[in-house]
Amino acid sequence: MYAYCHPPKWLIDKYPSILPVDINTGNVRGFGSRRHYDFSSPDYLREALKISEIVAKRYGQHPSVIGWQTDNEIACHDTCHSGSEHAKLAFQQWCKNKYQDIDCLNSAWGTVFWSMEYQDFSQIELPILAVTETHPAHQLAYRRFSSDQVVHFHDEMIKVIRQHAPNRWVTHNFIPMADTQTDNYALAKNLDFVSYDNYPLGRSDLFFANAPAEKFKPYMRTGHPDYASYAFDQSRGISNQNFWIMEQQLGPVNWALHNPRPEKGMVRLWSWQAFAHGADCVCFFRWRQAPFAQEQMHAGIKRNDNSPAQAWHEVEQLHAEMQQFSLKMGSKVTAKVAIVTGTLNQWVTEIEIQGTSYSHLEVEFSYYSALRQLGVAVDFISTEDDLSNYDMVVAPCLPIVSQAFVEKCKASHAHFIFGPRSGAKTDELSLAPNLGPGLLQQLIPIKVLTTETIRPDCSETMTFNDKQYESSRWREELEINADITVLASDASDSPMVVQKDNVSYIATLTCDQFLQDLFEVIAEKVGVNTIRLAKDMRIMQRDNLTFIFNYSGNTLTFPTEAAEKLGRFVVGKAELAPYDVAVIEHQ
Amino acid sequence: MYAYCHPPKWLIDKYPSILPVDINTGNVRGFGSRRHYDFSSPDYLREALKISEIVAKRYGQHPSVIGWQTDNEIACHDTCHSGSEHAKLAFQQWCKNKYQDIDCLNSAWGTVFWSMEYQDFSQIELPILAVTETHPAHQLAYRRFSSDQVVHFHDEMIKVIRQHAPNRWVTHNFIPMADTQTDNYALAKNLDFVSYDNYPLGRSDLFFANAPAEKFKPYMRTGHPDYASYAFDQSRGISNQNFWIMEQQLGPVNWALHNPRPEKGMVRLWSWQAFAHGADCVCFFRWRQAPFAQEQMHAGIKRNDNSPAQAWHEVEQLHAEMQQFSLKMGSKVTAKVAIVTGTLNQWVTEIEIQGTSYSHLEVEFSYYSALRQLGVAVDFISTEDDLSNYDMVVAPCLPIVSQAFVEKCKASHAHFIFGPRSGAKTDELSLAPNLGPGLLQQLIPIKVLTTETIRPDCSETMTFNDKQYESSRWREELEINADITVLASDASDSPMVVQKDNVSYIATLTCDQFLQDLFEVIAEKVGVNTIRLAKDMRIMQRDNLTFIFNYSGNTLTFPTEAAEKLGRFVVGKAELAPYDVAVIEHQ
Amino acid sequence: MYAYCHPPKWLIDKYPSILPVDINTGNVRGFGSRRHYDFSSPDYLREALKISEIVAKRYGQHPSVIGWQTDNEIACHDTCHSGSEHAKLAFQQWCKNKYQDIDCLNSAWGTVFWSMEYQDFSQIELPILAVTETHPAHQLAYRRFSSDQVVHFHDEMIKVIRQHAPNRWVTHNFIPMADTQTDNYALAKNLDFVSYDNYPLGRSDLFFANAPAEKFKPYMRTGHPDYASYAFDQSRGISNQNFWIMEQQLGPVNWALHNPRPEKGMVRLWSWQAFAHGADCVCFFRWRQAPFAQEQMHAGIKRNDNSPAQAWHEVEQLHAEMQQFSLKMGSKVTAKVAIVTGTLNQWVTEIEIQGTSYSHLEVEFSYYSALRQLGVAVDFISTEDDLSNYDMVVAPCLPIVSQAFVEKCKASHAHFIFGPRSGAKTDELSLAPNLGPGLLQQLIPIKVLTTETIRPDCSETMTFNDKQYESSRWREELEINADITVLASDASDSPMVVQKDNVSYIATLTCDQFLQDLFEVIAEKVGVNTIRLAKDMRIMQRDNLTFIFNYSGNTLTFPTEAAEKLGRFVVGKAELAPYDVAVIEHQ
Repeated sequence: MYAYCHPPKWLIDKYPSILPVDINTGNVRGFGSRRHYDFSSPDYLREALKISEIVAKRYGQHPSVIGWQTDNEIACHDTCHSGSEHAKLAFQQWCKNKYQDIDCLNSAWGTVFWSMEYQDFSQIELPILAVTETHPAHQLAYRRFSSDQVVHFHDEMIKVIRQHAPNRWVTHNFIPMADTQTDNYALAKNLDFVSYDNYPLGRSDLFFANAPAEKFKPYMRTGHPDYASYAFDQSRGISNQNFWIMEQQLGPVNWALHNPRPEKGMVRLWSWQAFAHGADCVCFFRWRQAPFAQEQMHAGIKRNDNSPAQAWHEVEQLHAEMQQFSLKMGSKVTAKVAIVTGTLNQWVTEIEIQGTSYSHLEVEFSYYSALRQLGVAVDFISTEDDLSNYDMVVAPCLPIVSQAFVEKCKASHAHFIFGPRSGAKTDELSLAPNLGPGLLQQLIPIKVLTTETIRPDCSETMTFNDKQYESSRWREELEINADITVLASDASDSPMVVQKDNVSYIATLTCDQFLQDLFEVIAEKVGVNTIRLAKDMRIMQRDNLTFIFNYSGNTLTFPTEAAEKLGRFVVGKAELAPYDVAVIEHQ
Repeated sequence: MYAYCHPPKWLIDKYPSILPVDINTGNVRGFGSRRHYDFSSPDYLREALKISEIVAKRYGQHPSVIGWQTDNEIACHDTCHSGSEHAKLAFQQWCKNKYQDIDCLNSAWGTVFWSMEYQDFSQIELPILAVTETHPAHQLAYRRFSSDQVVHFHDEMIKVIRQHAPNRWVTHNFIPMADTQTDNYALAKNLDFVSYDNYPLGRSDLFFANAPAEKFKPYMRTGHPDYASYAFDQSRGISNQNFWIMEQQLGPVNWALHNPRPEKGMVRLWSWQAFAHGADCVCFFRWRQAPFAQEQMHAGIKRNDNSPAQAWHEVEQLHAEMQQFSLKMGSKVTAKVAIVTGTLNQWVTEIEIQGTSYSHLEVEFSYYSALRQLGVAVDFISTEDDLSNYDMVVAPCLPIVSQAFVEKCKASHAHFIFGPRSGAKTDELSLAPNLGPGLLQQLIPIKVLTTETIRPDCSETMTFNDKQYESSRWREELEINADITVLASDASDSPMVVQKDNVSYIATLTCDQFLQDLFEVIAEKVGVNTIRLAKDMRIMQRDNLTFIFNYSGNTLTFPTEAAEKLGRFVVGKAELAPYDVAVIEHQ
Repeated sequence: MYAYCHPPKWLIDKYPSILPVDINTGNVRGFGSRRHYDFSSPDYLREALKISEIVAKRYGQHPSVIGWQTDNEIACHDTCHSGSEHAKLAFQQWCKNKYQDIDCLNSAWGTVFWSMEYQDFSQIELPILAVTETHPAHQLAYRRFSSDQVVHFHDEMIKVIRQHAPNRWVTHNFIPMADTQTDNYALAKNLDFVSYDNYPLGRSDLFFANAPAEKFKPYMRTGHPDYASYAFDQSRGISNQNFWIMEQQLGPVNWALHNPRPEKGMVRLWSWQAFAHGADCVCFFRWRQAPFAQEQMHAGIKRNDNSPAQAWHEVEQLHAEMQQFSLKMGSKVTAKVAIVTGTLNQWVTEIEIQGTSYSHLEVEFSYYSALRQLGVAVDFISTEDDLSNYDMVVAPCLPIVSQAFVEKCKASHAHFIFGPRSGAKTDELSLAPNLGPGLLQQLIPIKVLTTETIRPDCSETMTFNDKQYESSRWREELEINADITVLASDASDSPMVVQKDNVSYIATLTCDQFLQDLFEVIAEKVGVNTIRLAKDMRIMQRDNLTFIFNYSGNTLTFPTEAAEKLGRFVVGKAELAPYDVAVIEHQ
């Protein structure tokens, strides 16, 4: 089904309106690369289903075909959004379906502001190419619509495959949410499991592009120790079960700003790390480096002259090691700590950035990394998920919450930690009528009186347990009552981190060190085990196995006592060479 | 009349050519935000006057309506310029009206260069979307035309209001010139007085966006001590009388890169500062924070839950203080020092930037701030204004001057200080035929032999009174004769600041410290009082009141002797708490 | 023929499709500046030839006309590439001419990747405005085509001139290749000689825009000591003979980011330097500063008030000095060292940048400058040129080589030095099937196993002769056998610079110091004289004259012994004042 994302030239010439339209320029995005199709094009949907049917009919029951991957990194290259006439008409219909009556839409969005009232759904434009910023509710609706279009296209494809390919699994190779603007939870709904394309170096180069050299260089050939697993844990979370790696980076790629080679050992390390975090299969991309076209500088397991590349030997080693002990496919990762995530959070922060240094991805990653540095296993969950298995539930950024979610929180024994912005918005991206954290005031009776954003180079400080930490970029002024414990305050004694019973609220963005220290205190309180390891060492337990990873260029030692308590080494030993892996089987 | 800037969707659908065209991309700027109208659209002018007439007829003599504000921040969001067909036709007509004969235009502009001669006015395009930079005279004409279109639209609106609303004042809420590309002096001509929308934090964040943290952070919650008053003095200057604040910032806004909260006390301080500089009324925007739409993060005097925000208490304090002494509305600020300003100067420097680090706004602000740090009251005047009341007239950047202005200078007793570029251009943006400073050579017989621009990080030095200062970014080589006193020279002995009788010429951009030191020497010479106060303290006299402002986070003390000489404190005392205000009533 | 580049408005109105189309936006690039014509417009070609014929007929045999300059800085302002319908049709025809059969094109480009196979030449689009990056072979073809269009247009013009202007030379004033995207070797083929427009300050400001102030400032009024001569030597190389300077910078210009004045003496110095490097004539642009239009801030030899500018006196001095000794026009520069250059190298590195810090221009310049700092004369040659006169042949970046070139190398006695990327690609921008350096493996049996690019601020080190140097930005992992001498290795002992017999390969980008030290060692080996002079001193020999230049603000002394060995000073002496020139006539 890979051909989906490359409609051929003759098809484009026959139906030119298949091509999407750039929402920033209004230009048609032409033929000549890939993904040149509009998710709202009826012509393309029809033709794509036609070819799906032909292929599915032909190979659906072929004994060598055990399963199907739909499309390829769907909605990559900013193709979720299109500014086409087709997209506009489909958006108007989507609005009609959702709001039924134009006055309902006017009232839900608040179009009375700036005289934007509509008399008819046919008047609604896409929120693009306007004089200045468009209405946030309009933008949010457009993002929801665009994501729905991708999901619809994808679901139709799945239907055709399932019809003709019984008893085969269907998956899709996801890339990070931030890149697709698509609700991956919705996209995964009709799949058997989620796959992920894992390129830690390429993605780290982009993610940390503004990091200073002294922070970036140590990881330029490994990726940040928590970056790959961040994606693994998210992939596991999307469908709440194990996942596949469909593409694993094997050497330098071609598409980042700079493309370093992985350190020797990293392909093996990343692969073991994927297994440790719940992968049931790791595939590598690609077999042999393609001699031509856009990806010719994208390394394979073999070079273009057919010689084995460095990764070849690492994959052989991996294979040999897999014989040494039993990693049961389908066996589970168990986490007592969850991070609440969702595309909606990202959309809200992008639509209403308020301070240009706010990055939803960085915020979420910093919370995740702090937990991982404490050796804690983390599930990513949506607000729809069950909370009953968790002892700690962390929401780095959750501006929109439902009453149903609040009820689940009330019923839970877990300790909840909410980051700034949480609960601040209604479902239509308006202000919570009772001020932030809105509905979450039912969990912790505080009010956000003022929200300020400040330049990242103009940070303030706050004090927690007599130590000073950063209070930066996003800062809220809280009104609290006597019930509330103030854990941290800023220099003018404004409460920055507060707690009541099993609920904590962090009213500011802060530094990695603070998050670690706070999470450690709370984890201890709720009985979640933590361990402070060497800076670049990480551990992860899956089933009866504990994996230890050394992301650094130095030999690092895992504490002997801890190792002995866990079991016996089936791969490696307590002293890990640079970029090495060890595995302990529990007794 | 606020609805003016938001034509409704049904009107746009009826007359799509109301929409303006982006001059950088050629794209229509669509519906979905505000100000989506083209000042050259005949349809919109007609419809806008129609609604004006209806509203003016209905409310014009209503006893509760004391006056009218036209439109809202007219020409904001870069809407002065449009690349539409309507704009092109109107521009051709404008050229025809101005030059009558196409050969006159050819000769005035110098179209012989690069074979750009026109045979007919209908051949003239807008100076946009060309292969490389367009003709400067063409660009200047287009800017004059575009400004004229805004003024014409606005004047027509005023006419309608005045016809139906007798004995009511008419004003408009201006934003800084730099943002509107409109000649505010022309725009204000038919108004009763000027109003200004005062957002010191939002505007400072943008204005000082490239400032290093150590310069920016001290003022991130106050604005630079001279930034608000820079706007106040300009507002007073535009119509040469007192002004209103129509919108005063009350808390964080939503539209700057980062949006900090004001320090406690700043809303009161800014308000008093506005009064000190000639405001007759300060209004606050807005009453209650809007729960939805683009400005939901723009603070009001009440929060969206109707609770009073921090600013509420400051406004109450302000109100109470206003009862303690009499600030006579209409009473005047008297300045002996004037800065000559004008949109034309900005246009010239933007069209012919010559060095990318030249910023007209920064240059003018640096001259203004140096004077304010000396405690000097400053009027902003245009070249059309009377000079007879001033002892010092400072022109930071005045590339185009008329003979009439030169005659006024000759007739004046004031000391004139001209910055670099002054007099360098003719009215059609050609070189002064006698070299710079052109007509100003009548005042000081020097010639600018060479003009260089250098990188801001590659500054040179100059020496004045045995001290070293910066000579940076823009540097001129002068030819002088024996009559001329050289005040400052650079390292290779090239004269950088020269003087003859009551005229000084500064041939370079320089640093704040130099401008303060030079102005102090000249002020003393002409009998203008100066006072060196603590770094973040400012004073301003209006009528029989002297206001003292503390922009810093520290307690600062106004010199007791100076205070006693002036009169008695009616607000505060000589020792000012952080962000505090004091007022002395003269005896 | 200068009018060529400014089609008049009436012509554009008659044939609007003359206007080119911006390949980044799809917008028509309108009238209003210059070069607003599409090289693929049949209308413009016809009209341009018509005016050429009229002018050539009229003045072709005029006794005062000794020669002709075609057009002006052809293809400047990014006009080589157009996205017009005309360009598309011409490109399809060009592809048809080159590949004959569409399957040949499919196979040559590798369109099977991403389903880009074509059934017909008429399906081929320009490689612009696509969803993501377009096919590299497609891009390369488009660059070759675009260059061919410029050359064809220019050649047609030359034909008309030659027909009507017998016994007159025809030249063109070139600007650096990097700016025109045109194969200058092809463009020069039918000219009598090449001319160059020499603006060292304007171009240095752009070229070194990202250099830190401490590196940039020393040269901001001189240009880098090797920058002007880099262009001179390239100009000499394009047609393998002496050249003219058609425009020599005389003072500040108007078009760089910042436009400093030249230090006093530099106009003379640059002029002498041009002669030293093979100029037969130096013309100055312009006579009198134009008072109006886009270039009014571009200095002339006279100011706009007709007074002589600083340069006037320097040109007089130059003229006087030319009387003091005989510089024979047509006399040759002799170089034993050649740098292999070509537009193709630039194209490959721009199409497949792989690491954003790779700049073909910077790489080539760094190799050139290292040689010049050793006092070595350098020829720029293409792969088509004869190698027999050289003792050292240096290829900083030569990704595509032909077997014919390899054969020439085999037959040569010279020492060859290849930079990274050399030989890595086929003629259609695919990977060399035997890995890099591809065909060059015949000269040195090594294989490039991995290529990585790293951030410029994350450099590694390498060791050569016990000293440490930078290994940065682009780094290759080499497979070598026992025959190979490793000259330099990185910290993990990976060979970075290797040698076999008379061939060296540098597998990384590196620093200026390393290149100097390596070249010195190799030059000694092959008997090329080098001399280490003061940092900012340069020497150049032409015929029986040695020129010495002082680019610094300090007095520098040329070694007396070396001077005496050469001959006697006919201009200046061994001790050179700042920005001074000396000339030694050999005995």
